[in-house]
Amino acid sequence: MPAAPRIGIGVDVHAAAPEDSPRELWIAGLRWEGQRALEGHSDADVACHAACDALFSAAGIGDLGTHFGVGRPEWEGASGSRLLGEAARLVREAGYEIGNISVQVIGNWPRLSRRREEACAAMTAAAGAPVAVSGTTTDALGLTGRGEGLAAMATALLVPADDGSGTGRAPEQTRPEEDRA
Amino acid sequence: MPAAPRIGIGVDVHAAAPEDSPRELWIAGLRWEGQRALEGHSDADVACHAACDALFSAAGIGDLGTHFGVGRPEWEGASGSRLLGEAARLVREAGYEIGNISVQVIGNWPRLSRRREEACAAMTAAAGAPVAVSGTTTDALGLTGRGEGLAAMATALLVPADDGSGTGRAPEQTRPEEDRA
Amino acid sequence: MPAAPRIGIGVDVHAAAPEDSPRELWIAGLRWEGQRALEGHSDADVACHAACDALFSAAGIGDLGTHFGVGRPEWEGASGSRLLGEAARLVREAGYEIGNISVQVIGNWPRLSRRREEACAAMTAAAGAPVAVSGTTTDALGLTGRGEGLAAMATALLVPADDGSGTGRAPEQTRPEEDRA
Repeated sequence: MPAAPRIGIGVDVHAAAPEDSPRELWIAGLRWEGQRALEGHSDADVACHAACDALFSAAGIGDLGTHFGVGRPEWEGASGSRLLGEAARLVREAGYEIGNISVQVIGNWPRLSRRREEACAAMTAAAGAPVAVSGTTTDALGLTGRGEGLAAMATALLVPADDGSGTGRAPEQTRPEEDRA
Repeated sequence: MPAAPRIGIGVDVHAAAPEDSPRELWIAGLRWEGQRALEGHSDADVACHAACDALFSAAGIGDLGTHFGVGRPEWEGASGSRLLGEAARLVREAGYEIGNISVQVIGNWPRLSRRREEACAAMTAAAGAPVAVSGTTTDALGLTGRGEGLAAMATALLVPADDGSGTGRAPEQTRPEEDRA
Repeated sequence: MPAAPRIGIGVDVHAAAPEDSPRELWIAGLRWEGQRALEGHSDADVACHAACDALFSAAGIGDLGTHFGVGRPEWEGASGSRLLGEAARLVREAGYEIGNISVQVIGNWPRLSRRREEACAAMTAAAGAPVAVSGTTTDALGLTGRGEGLAAMATALLVPADDGSGTGRAPEQTRPEEDRA
Protein backbone atom coordinates (compact mmCIF):
# COMPACT_ATOMS: atom_id res chain seq x y z
CA MET A 1 0.00 0.00 0.00
CA PRO A 2 1.37 3.42 -0.88
CA ALA A 3 1.73 5.73 2.10
CA ALA A 4 -1.55 7.43 2.97
CA PRO A 5 -1.93 11.14 2.39
CA ARG A 6 -1.95 13.38 5.43
CA ILE A 7 -4.32 16.17 6.30
CA GLY A 8 -4.10 19.22 8.50
CA ILE A 9 -6.32 22.01 9.75
CA GLY A 10 -5.65 25.62 10.68
CA VAL A 11 -7.63 28.63 11.86
CA ASP A 12 -6.62 32.27 12.20
CA VAL A 13 -8.33 35.43 13.44
CA HIS A 14 -7.17 39.05 13.41
CA ALA A 15 -8.94 42.09 14.82
CA ALA A 16 -9.98 45.06 12.70
CA ALA A 17 -7.67 48.06 12.92
CA PRO A 18 -9.13 51.49 13.75
CA GLU A 19 -10.68 53.34 10.79
CA ASP A 20 -7.80 55.83 10.69
CA SER A 21 -5.05 53.20 10.90
CA PRO A 22 -2.25 53.59 8.35
CA ARG A 23 -2.22 49.79 7.95
CA GLU A 24 -3.32 48.16 4.70
CA LEU A 25 -5.60 45.14 4.35
CA TRP A 26 -3.79 42.07 3.04
CA ILE A 27 -5.82 38.92 2.50
CA ALA A 28 -4.80 35.84 0.49
CA GLY A 29 -1.59 37.49 -0.61
CA LEU A 30 -3.41 40.48 -2.10
CA ARG A 31 -3.64 44.11 -1.02
CA TRP A 32 -7.26 45.30 -0.78
CA GLU A 33 -7.13 49.02 -1.33
CA GLY A 34 -9.50 51.23 0.60
CA GLN A 35 -10.64 48.37 2.82
CA ARG A 36 -10.51 48.32 6.61
CA ALA A 37 -7.16 46.89 7.73
CA LEU A 38 -6.45 44.28 10.41
CA GLU A 39 -4.20 44.59 13.45
CA GLY A 40 -1.16 42.42 13.99
CA HIS A 41 2.60 42.32 14.27
CA SER A 42 2.54 40.68 10.85
CA ASP A 43 0.48 41.75 7.85
CA ALA A 44 -2.44 39.91 9.49
CA ASP A 45 -3.21 37.90 6.35
CA VAL A 46 -5.58 35.40 7.97
CA ALA A 47 -5.90 33.31 4.79
CA CYS A 48 -2.15 32.75 4.44
CA HIS A 49 -1.70 32.18 8.17
CA ALA A 50 -4.46 29.56 8.34
CA ALA A 51 -2.96 27.84 5.30
CA CYS A 52 0.48 27.76 6.95
CA ASP A 53 -0.94 26.17 10.09
CA ALA A 54 -2.83 23.57 8.04
CA LEU A 55 0.40 22.67 6.23
CA PHE A 56 2.50 22.48 9.40
CA SER A 57 -0.09 20.36 11.17
CA ALA A 58 -0.49 17.97 8.25
CA ALA A 59 3.28 17.43 8.21
CA GLY A 60 3.43 17.20 12.00
CA ILE A 61 6.08 19.89 12.29
CA GLY A 62 4.53 22.39 14.67
CA ASP A 63 2.71 25.61 13.96
CA LEU A 64 3.16 29.29 13.12
CA GLY A 65 4.64 29.98 16.53
CA THR A 66 7.20 27.19 16.12
CA HIS A 67 8.54 28.54 12.87
CA PHE A 68 7.77 32.24 12.77
CA GLY A 69 7.30 33.15 16.46
CA VAL A 70 9.07 35.67 18.62
CA GLY A 71 12.19 33.49 18.72
CA ARG A 72 12.56 33.96 14.98
CA PRO A 73 12.95 37.72 14.56
CA GLU A 74 13.99 37.24 10.92
CA TRP A 75 10.32 36.62 10.10
CA GLU A 76 8.95 39.65 11.95
CA GLY A 77 6.79 41.68 9.63
CA ALA A 78 7.04 39.11 6.83
CA SER A 79 4.09 39.04 4.45
CA GLY A 80 1.59 36.22 4.52
CA SER A 81 2.78 35.15 1.07
CA ARG A 82 6.36 34.85 2.25
CA LEU A 83 5.30 32.82 5.28
CA LEU A 84 3.23 30.53 3.09
CA GLY A 85 6.17 30.03 0.73
CA GLU A 86 8.44 29.16 3.63
CA ALA A 87 5.83 26.84 5.17
CA ALA A 88 5.54 25.03 1.83
CA ARG A 89 9.33 24.70 1.66
CA LEU A 90 9.46 23.26 5.17
CA VAL A 91 6.81 20.60 4.56
CA ARG A 92 8.64 19.58 1.38
CA GLU A 93 11.87 19.42 3.36
CA ALA A 94 10.02 17.14 5.77
CA GLY A 95 9.32 14.75 2.88
CA TYR A 96 5.89 15.69 1.58
CA GLU A 97 4.39 16.95 -1.63
CA ILE A 98 1.48 19.35 -1.28
CA GLY A 99 -1.70 17.97 -2.84
CA ASN A 100 -3.91 21.01 -2.33
CA ILE A 101 -4.98 23.63 0.18
CA SER A 102 -8.51 24.90 0.76
CA VAL A 103 -9.06 28.20 2.57
CA GLN A 104 -12.28 29.95 3.50
CA VAL A 105 -12.20 33.59 4.54
CA ILE A 106 -14.97 34.43 7.01
CA GLY A 107 -16.13 38.00 7.48
CA ASN A 108 -17.98 41.08 6.29
CA TRP A 109 -15.21 42.41 4.06
CA PRO A 110 -13.50 42.49 1.58
CA ARG A 111 -15.74 41.35 -1.26
CA LEU A 112 -13.66 38.32 -2.03
CA SER A 113 -15.82 37.30 -4.97
CA ARG A 114 -14.58 40.23 -6.99
CA ARG A 115 -11.00 39.00 -6.91
CA ARG A 116 -11.39 35.36 -5.96
CA GLU A 117 -9.43 33.95 -8.88
CA GLU A 118 -6.66 36.47 -8.30
CA ALA A 119 -6.56 35.40 -4.65
CA CYS A 120 -6.35 31.72 -5.64
CA ALA A 121 -3.54 32.53 -8.08
CA ALA A 122 -1.56 34.53 -5.51
CA MET A 123 -1.73 31.82 -2.85
CA THR A 124 -1.12 29.06 -5.42
CA ALA A 125 2.04 30.87 -6.55
CA ALA A 126 3.20 31.30 -2.95
CA ALA A 127 2.61 27.66 -2.02
CA GLY A 128 3.67 26.14 -5.34
CA ALA A 129 0.54 23.98 -5.17
CA PRO A 130 -3.19 24.43 -5.82
CA VAL A 131 -4.88 26.72 -3.32
CA ALA A 132 -8.63 27.41 -3.47
CA VAL A 133 -9.89 30.51 -1.67
CA SER A 134 -13.58 30.95 -0.89
CA GLY A 135 -15.51 33.42 1.21
CA THR A 136 -18.48 33.46 3.52
CA THR A 137 -20.18 35.58 6.13
CA THR A 138 -21.79 34.68 9.45
CA ASP A 139 -25.16 36.41 9.10
CA ALA A 140 -24.20 39.36 11.35
CA LEU A 141 -23.41 37.01 14.25
CA GLY A 142 -20.25 36.38 16.21
CA LEU A 143 -16.96 38.22 16.03
CA THR A 144 -16.85 38.29 12.25
CA GLY A 145 -20.55 39.10 11.89
CA ARG A 146 -20.18 42.10 14.18
CA GLY A 147 -17.24 43.27 12.09
CA GLU A 148 -14.73 42.98 14.93
CA GLY A 149 -12.28 41.15 12.72
CA LEU A 150 -11.76 38.53 10.04
CA ALA A 151 -11.19 34.79 10.33
CA ALA A 152 -10.00 32.07 8.00
CA MET A 153 -10.10 28.30 8.16
CA ALA A 154 -7.89 26.07 6.06
CA THR A 155 -7.28 22.42 5.39
CA ALA A 156 -4.34 20.94 3.53
CA LEU A 157 -3.60 17.54 2.03
CA LEU A 158 -0.04 16.26 1.72
CA VAL A 159 1.30 13.21 -0.07
CA PRO A 160 4.50 11.52 1.12
CA ALA A 161 7.23 12.07 -1.48
CA ASP A 162 8.01 9.12 -3.75
CA ASP A 163 11.50 8.76 -2.41
CA GLY A 164 10.17 7.56 0.88
CA SER A 165 11.52 10.53 2.80
CA GLY A 166 8.08 11.44 4.01
CA THR A 167 8.59 10.43 7.57
CA GLY A 168 7.03 13.48 9.05
CA ARG A 169 10.23 14.21 10.94
CA ALA A 170 11.66 17.59 10.13
CA PRO A 171 14.76 19.27 11.52
CA GLU A 172 12.54 21.96 13.01
CA GLN A 173 10.82 19.47 15.24
CA THR A 174 13.62 19.42 17.75
CA ARG A 175 14.21 23.13 18.05
CA PRO A 176 13.00 24.85 21.16
CA GLU A 177 9.66 26.37 20.44
CA GLU A 178 8.58 29.90 20.93
CA ASP A 179 5.22 31.41 21.51
CA ARG A 180 3.45 32.78 18.59
CA ALA A 181 4.15 36.40 17.72
CA MET B 1 1.60 7.91 -8.92
CA PRO B 2 -2.20 8.18 -9.17
CA ALA B 3 -3.47 11.73 -8.81
CA ALA B 4 -3.77 12.73 -5.18
CA PRO B 5 -7.20 13.25 -3.65
CA ARG B 6 -8.27 16.81 -2.95
CA ILE B 7 -9.83 18.23 0.16
CA GLY B 8 -11.97 21.23 0.87
CA ILE B 9 -13.46 23.03 3.86
CA GLY B 10 -16.65 25.04 4.31
CA VAL B 11 -18.41 26.87 7.12
CA ASP B 12 -21.90 28.37 7.28
CA VAL B 13 -23.87 30.31 9.87
CA HIS B 14 -27.51 31.46 9.89
CA ALA B 15 -29.30 33.54 12.50
CA ALA B 16 -32.34 32.31 14.41
CA ALA B 17 -35.67 33.61 13.13
CA PRO B 18 -38.09 35.27 15.56
CA GLU B 19 -40.22 32.87 17.61
CA ASP B 20 -43.33 33.79 15.64
CA SER B 21 -41.71 33.45 12.23
CA PRO B 22 -43.66 31.40 9.68
CA ARG B 23 -40.37 29.93 8.48
CA GLU B 24 -39.55 26.24 9.03
CA LEU B 25 -36.28 24.81 10.28
CA TRP B 26 -34.43 22.82 7.62
CA ILE B 27 -31.15 21.18 8.59
CA ALA B 28 -29.31 18.46 6.68
CA GLY B 29 -32.06 18.21 4.13
CA LEU B 30 -34.70 17.49 6.78
CA ARG B 31 -37.57 19.58 8.12
CA TRP B 32 -37.51 19.81 11.91
CA GLU B 33 -41.08 20.40 12.96
CA GLY B 34 -41.80 22.67 15.86
CA GLN B 35 -38.18 23.82 16.08
CA ARG B 36 -37.01 27.42 15.92
CA ALA B 37 -36.34 28.38 12.29
CA LEU B 38 -33.37 30.23 10.81
CA GLU B 39 -33.37 33.42 8.77
CA GLY B 40 -32.13 33.58 5.19
CA HIS B 41 -33.06 34.16 1.59
CA SER B 42 -32.61 30.42 1.14
CA ASP B 43 -33.91 27.69 3.45
CA ALA B 44 -30.86 28.44 5.66
CA ASP B 45 -29.81 24.78 5.78
CA VAL B 46 -26.36 25.37 7.26
CA ALA B 47 -25.36 21.70 6.93
CA CYS B 48 -26.06 21.54 3.20
CA HIS B 49 -24.52 24.97 2.59
CA ALA B 50 -21.29 24.10 4.40
CA ALA B 51 -21.11 20.84 2.45
CA CYS B 52 -21.54 22.70 -0.85
CA ASP B 53 -18.70 25.08 -0.01
CA ALA B 54 -16.43 22.19 1.01
CA LEU B 55 -17.14 20.51 -2.34
CA PHE B 56 -16.60 23.65 -4.40
CA SER B 57 -13.36 24.48 -2.61
CA ALA B 58 -11.98 20.95 -2.95
CA ALA B 59 -12.61 21.12 -6.70
CA GLY B 60 -11.27 24.66 -6.92
CA ILE B 61 -14.39 25.98 -8.60
CA GLY B 62 -15.47 28.84 -6.38
CA ASP B 63 -18.06 28.94 -3.66
CA LEU B 64 -21.79 29.28 -2.96
CA GLY B 65 -21.78 32.87 -4.16
CA THR B 66 -20.14 31.89 -7.45
CA HIS B 67 -22.75 29.31 -8.30
CA PHE B 68 -25.91 30.25 -6.42
CA GLY B 69 -25.45 33.99 -5.74
CA VAL B 70 -27.57 36.96 -6.67
CA GLY B 71 -26.49 36.67 -10.28
CA ARG B 72 -28.19 33.28 -10.47
CA PRO B 73 -31.83 34.04 -9.68
CA GLU B 74 -32.82 30.54 -10.82
CA TRP B 75 -31.44 29.24 -7.51
CA GLU B 76 -33.20 31.75 -5.29
CA GLY B 77 -35.13 29.94 -2.59
CA ALA B 78 -33.75 26.55 -3.60
CA SER B 79 -33.56 23.99 -0.81
CA GLY B 80 -30.25 22.99 0.70
CA SER B 81 -30.70 19.51 -0.75
CA ARG B 82 -31.13 20.87 -4.25
CA LEU B 83 -28.05 23.06 -3.89
CA LEU B 84 -26.04 20.10 -2.61
CA GLY B 85 -27.17 17.99 -5.54
CA GLU B 86 -26.16 20.70 -7.99
CA ALA B 87 -22.80 21.23 -6.23
CA ALA B 88 -22.12 17.51 -6.50
CA ARG B 89 -22.99 17.60 -10.19
CA LEU B 90 -20.64 20.53 -10.78
CA VAL B 91 -17.65 18.91 -9.07
CA ARG B 92 -18.24 15.75 -11.11
CA GLU B 93 -18.43 17.89 -14.24
CA ALA B 94 -15.08 19.35 -13.19
CA GLY B 95 -13.62 15.83 -13.25
CA TYR B 96 -13.85 14.55 -9.70
CA GLU B 97 -15.55 11.73 -7.87
CA ILE B 98 -16.75 12.50 -4.36
CA GLY B 99 -15.06 10.30 -1.76
CA ASN B 100 -17.00 11.47 1.27
CA ILE B 101 -18.28 14.54 3.08
CA SER B 102 -18.22 15.14 6.84
CA VAL B 103 -20.49 17.78 8.37
CA GLN B 104 -20.83 18.88 11.97
CA VAL B 105 -23.84 20.96 13.00
CA ILE B 106 -23.02 23.29 15.90
CA GLY B 107 -25.78 24.70 18.09
CA ASN B 108 -28.37 24.30 20.80
CA TRP B 109 -31.04 22.83 18.56
CA PRO B 110 -32.41 20.66 16.97
CA ARG B 111 -31.61 17.39 18.76
CA LEU B 112 -29.71 15.98 15.85
CA SER B 113 -29.08 12.68 17.61
CA ARG B 114 -32.74 11.73 17.33
CA ARG B 115 -32.63 11.79 13.55
CA ARG B 116 -28.93 11.56 12.80
CA GLU B 117 -29.14 8.55 10.52
CA GLU B 118 -32.05 10.10 8.65
CA ALA B 119 -29.97 13.27 8.22
CA CYS B 120 -27.02 11.26 6.90
CA ALA B 121 -29.32 9.44 4.48
CA ALA B 122 -30.91 12.65 3.19
CA MET B 123 -27.60 14.37 2.51
CA THR B 124 -26.07 11.17 1.09
CA ALA B 125 -28.97 10.94 -1.34
CA ALA B 126 -28.60 14.58 -2.33
CA ALA B 127 -24.84 14.34 -2.90
CA GLY B 128 -24.81 10.84 -4.35
CA ALA B 129 -21.88 10.07 -2.05
CA PRO B 130 -21.40 9.23 1.65
CA VAL B 131 -22.19 12.16 3.95
CA ALA B 132 -21.78 11.85 7.73
CA VAL B 133 -23.66 14.35 9.88
CA SER B 134 -22.74 14.89 13.52
CA GLY B 135 -23.76 17.43 16.11
CA THR B 136 -22.18 19.36 18.95
CA THR B 137 -22.80 22.32 21.22
CA THR B 138 -20.50 25.05 22.46
CA ASP B 139 -21.22 24.91 26.18
CA ALA B 140 -23.45 28.01 26.16
CA LEU B 141 -20.65 30.15 24.69
CA GLY B 142 -20.38 32.12 21.50
CA LEU B 143 -23.06 32.81 18.92
CA THR B 144 -24.34 29.25 18.86
CA GLY B 145 -24.09 28.80 22.62
CA ARG B 146 -26.21 31.90 23.18
CA GLY B 147 -28.78 30.53 20.75
CA GLU B 148 -28.37 33.39 18.28
CA GLY B 149 -28.11 30.96 15.39
CA LEU B 150 -26.72 27.68 14.11
CA ALA B 151 -23.42 26.91 12.41
CA ALA B 152 -22.04 24.00 10.44
CA MET B 153 -18.55 23.03 9.37
CA ALA B 154 -17.82 20.58 6.60
CA THR B 155 -14.91 18.92 4.91
CA ALA B 156 -15.00 16.98 1.64
CA LEU B 157 -12.62 14.63 -0.10
CA LEU B 158 -12.58 14.28 -3.87
CA VAL B 159 -10.77 11.80 -6.10
CA PRO B 160 -9.82 12.74 -9.67
CA ALA B 161 -11.92 10.69 -12.09
CA ASP B 162 -10.18 7.73 -13.74
CA ASP B 163 -10.46 9.23 -17.18
CA GLY B 164 -7.96 11.88 -16.27
CA SER B 165 -10.46 14.68 -16.66
CA GLY B 166 -9.89 15.83 -13.10
CA THR B 167 -8.08 19.00 -13.96
CA GLY B 168 -9.95 21.15 -11.52
CA ARG B 169 -10.99 23.49 -14.32
CA ALA B 170 -14.71 23.85 -14.62
CA PRO B 171 -16.71 25.97 -17.05
CA GLU B 172 -18.04 27.97 -14.11
CA GLN B 173 -14.59 29.18 -13.24
CA THR B 174 -14.57 31.80 -15.93
CA ARG B 175 -18.01 33.24 -15.36
CA PRO B 176 -18.24 36.58 -13.66
CA GLU B 177 -18.81 36.01 -10.01
CA GLU B 178 -21.55 37.39 -7.90
CA ASP B 179 -21.76 38.09 -4.24
CA ARG B 180 -23.36 35.53 -2.11
CA ALA B 181 -27.07 35.82 -1.64
CA MET C 1 -8.81 1.85 -7.99
CA PRO C 2 -8.05 1.34 -4.31
CA ALA C 3 -10.76 2.65 -2.00
CA ALA C 4 -10.44 6.37 -1.40
CA PRO C 5 -9.43 7.63 2.01
CA ARG C 6 -12.12 9.24 4.12
CA ILE C 7 -12.01 12.48 6.04
CA GLY C 8 -13.86 13.84 9.02
CA ILE C 9 -14.13 17.06 10.97
CA GLY C 10 -14.87 17.81 14.62
CA VAL C 11 -15.14 20.85 16.86
CA ASP C 12 -15.44 21.12 20.62
CA VAL C 13 -15.82 23.97 23.09
CA HIS C 14 -15.80 23.98 26.90
CA ALA C 15 -16.34 26.92 29.23
CA ALA C 16 -13.75 28.08 31.74
CA ALA C 17 -14.35 26.96 35.30
CA PRO C 18 -14.39 29.53 38.11
CA GLU C 19 -10.95 30.57 39.37
CA ASP C 20 -11.47 28.68 42.62
CA SER C 21 -12.72 25.48 41.00
CA PRO C 22 -11.09 22.28 42.23
CA ARG C 23 -11.09 20.99 38.64
CA GLU C 24 -7.81 20.51 36.75
CA LEU C 25 -7.08 21.56 33.20
CA TRP C 26 -6.65 18.63 30.84
CA ILE C 27 -5.83 19.36 27.22
CA ALA C 28 -4.50 16.93 24.62
CA GLY C 29 -4.25 14.17 27.18
CA LEU C 30 -2.01 16.23 29.48
CA ARG C 31 -2.63 17.85 32.83
CA TRP C 32 -1.69 21.54 32.84
CA GLU C 33 -0.85 22.38 36.41
CA GLY C 34 -1.81 25.75 37.79
CA GLN C 35 -3.84 26.63 34.69
CA ARG C 36 -7.50 27.64 34.66
CA ALA C 37 -9.68 24.55 34.35
CA LEU C 38 -12.68 23.95 32.09
CA GLU C 39 -16.20 22.96 33.07
CA GLY C 40 -17.79 19.72 31.93
CA HIS C 41 -19.18 16.37 32.99
CA SER C 42 -16.07 14.88 31.45
CA ASP C 43 -12.50 16.14 31.84
CA ALA C 44 -13.39 18.75 29.18
CA ASP C 45 -10.35 17.88 27.05
CA VAL C 46 -11.42 19.78 23.94
CA ALA C 47 -8.50 18.48 21.87
CA CYS C 48 -9.31 14.82 22.49
CA HIS C 49 -13.05 15.39 22.08
CA ALA C 50 -12.64 17.16 18.73
CA ALA C 51 -10.33 14.37 17.57
CA CYS C 52 -12.94 11.73 18.56
CA ASP C 53 -15.65 13.51 16.59
CA ALA C 54 -13.39 13.83 13.54
CA LEU C 55 -12.69 10.08 13.69
CA PHE C 56 -16.35 9.09 14.15
CA SER C 57 -17.47 11.36 11.33
CA ALA C 58 -14.79 10.12 8.93
CA ALA C 59 -15.92 6.54 9.58
CA GLY C 60 -19.58 7.50 9.38
CA ILE C 61 -20.38 5.99 12.77
CA GLY C 62 -21.97 8.86 14.67
CA ASP C 63 -20.46 11.24 17.17
CA LEU C 64 -19.45 11.65 20.81
CA GLY C 65 -23.07 11.57 21.90
CA THR C 66 -23.70 8.31 20.06
CA HIS C 67 -20.86 6.48 21.75
CA PHE C 68 -20.21 8.25 25.03
CA GLY C 69 -23.49 10.06 25.75
CA VAL C 70 -25.84 9.86 28.67
CA GLY C 71 -27.02 6.42 27.54
CA ARG C 72 -23.54 5.08 28.13
CA PRO C 73 -22.91 5.71 31.83
CA GLU C 74 -19.81 3.51 31.71
CA TRP C 75 -18.00 6.41 29.98
CA GLU C 76 -19.08 9.08 32.45
CA GLY C 77 -16.06 10.94 33.71
CA ALA C 78 -13.69 9.11 31.37
CA SER C 79 -10.57 11.03 30.40
CA GLY C 80 -10.15 12.48 26.92
CA SER C 81 -7.32 10.03 26.30
CA ARG C 82 -9.52 7.07 27.12
CA LEU C 83 -12.29 8.35 24.87
CA LEU C 84 -9.79 8.88 22.04
CA GLY C 85 -8.46 5.36 22.48
CA GLU C 86 -11.97 3.93 22.35
CA ALA C 87 -12.88 6.06 19.32
CA ALA C 88 -9.79 4.78 17.52
CA ARG C 89 -10.77 1.22 18.38
CA LEU C 90 -14.29 1.74 17.05
CA VAL C 91 -13.16 3.17 13.70
CA ARG C 92 -10.76 0.23 13.30
CA GLU C 93 -13.61 -2.12 14.14
CA ALA C 94 -15.59 -0.39 11.39
CA GLY C 95 -12.85 -1.34 8.92
CA TYR C 96 -10.53 1.65 8.75
CA GLU C 97 -6.92 2.37 9.48
CA ILE C 98 -6.19 5.84 10.87
CA GLY C 99 -3.89 7.83 8.60
CA ASN C 100 -3.43 10.87 10.78
CA ILE C 101 -5.27 13.38 12.95
CA SER C 102 -4.67 17.12 13.06
CA VAL C 103 -5.92 19.16 16.03
CA GLN C 104 -5.70 22.87 16.68
CA VAL C 105 -6.39 24.19 20.18
CA ILE C 106 -7.84 27.71 20.10
CA GLY C 107 -7.62 29.95 23.15
CA ASN C 108 -5.66 32.17 25.48
CA TRP C 109 -4.24 29.38 27.61
CA PRO C 110 -2.38 27.09 28.23
CA ARG C 111 0.89 27.91 26.45
CA LEU C 112 0.72 24.88 24.23
CA SER C 113 4.06 25.65 22.59
CA ARG C 114 5.90 24.78 25.78
CA ARG C 115 4.65 21.20 25.70
CA ARG C 116 3.54 20.77 22.13
CA GLU C 117 5.63 17.68 21.42
CA GLU C 118 4.49 16.09 24.65
CA ALA C 119 0.88 16.80 23.66
CA CYS C 120 1.42 15.21 20.24
CA ALA C 121 3.00 12.18 21.88
CA ALA C 122 0.15 11.75 24.39
CA MET C 123 -2.57 11.91 21.76
CA THR C 124 -0.57 9.77 19.33
CA ALA C 125 -0.25 7.10 22.02
CA ALA C 126 -3.97 7.27 22.78
CA ALA C 127 -5.03 7.02 19.13
CA GLY C 128 -2.31 4.61 18.03
CA ALA C 129 -1.76 6.84 14.99
CA PRO C 130 -0.01 10.15 14.27
CA VAL C 131 -1.70 13.14 15.92
CA ALA C 132 -0.39 16.67 15.42
CA VAL C 133 -1.43 19.29 17.97
CA SER C 134 -1.05 22.98 17.25
CA GLY C 135 -2.25 26.12 19.00
CA THR C 136 -3.57 29.53 18.09
CA THR C 137 -5.37 32.49 19.59
CA THR C 138 -8.13 34.70 18.23
CA ASP C 139 -6.65 38.15 18.83
CA ALA C 140 -8.79 38.83 21.92
CA LEU C 141 -12.02 38.32 19.92
CA GLY C 142 -14.87 35.89 20.30
CA LEU C 143 -15.49 33.40 23.05
CA THR C 144 -11.92 32.16 23.18
CA GLY C 145 -10.43 35.63 22.80
CA ARG C 146 -12.44 36.89 25.78
CA GLY C 147 -11.20 33.93 27.79
CA GLU C 148 -14.68 32.46 28.28
CA GLY C 149 -13.44 29.01 27.29
CA LEU C 150 -11.29 26.95 24.99
CA ALA C 151 -12.07 25.42 21.61
CA ALA C 152 -10.46 22.82 19.41
CA MET C 153 -10.93 21.84 15.78
CA ALA C 154 -9.78 18.54 14.34
CA THR C 155 -9.66 16.72 11.07
CA ALA C 156 -8.89 13.04 10.58
CA LEU C 157 -8.00 10.90 7.59
CA LEU C 158 -8.87 7.21 7.45
CA VAL C 159 -7.84 4.54 4.98
CA PRO C 160 -10.06 1.52 4.35
CA ALA C 161 -8.34 -1.58 5.72
CA ASP C 162 -6.65 -3.84 3.14
CA ASP C 163 -8.99 -6.69 3.86
CA GLY C 164 -11.84 -4.81 2.32
CA SER C 165 -13.76 -4.61 5.55
CA GLY C 166 -13.87 -0.83 5.36
CA THR C 167 -17.53 -0.56 4.65
CA GLY C 168 -18.18 2.19 7.08
CA ARG C 169 -20.82 0.10 8.80
CA ALA C 170 -20.16 -0.41 12.44
CA PRO C 171 -22.23 -2.28 14.99
CA GLU C 172 -22.81 0.98 16.84
CA GLN C 173 -24.63 2.47 13.92
CA THR C 174 -27.82 0.71 14.70
CA ARG C 175 -27.96 1.36 18.40
CA PRO C 176 -30.41 3.93 19.65
CA GLU C 177 -28.58 7.18 20.04
CA GLU C 178 -28.40 9.35 23.05
CA ASP C 179 -27.83 13.03 23.42
CA ARG C 180 -24.38 14.14 24.17
CA ALA C 181 -23.44 14.29 27.82
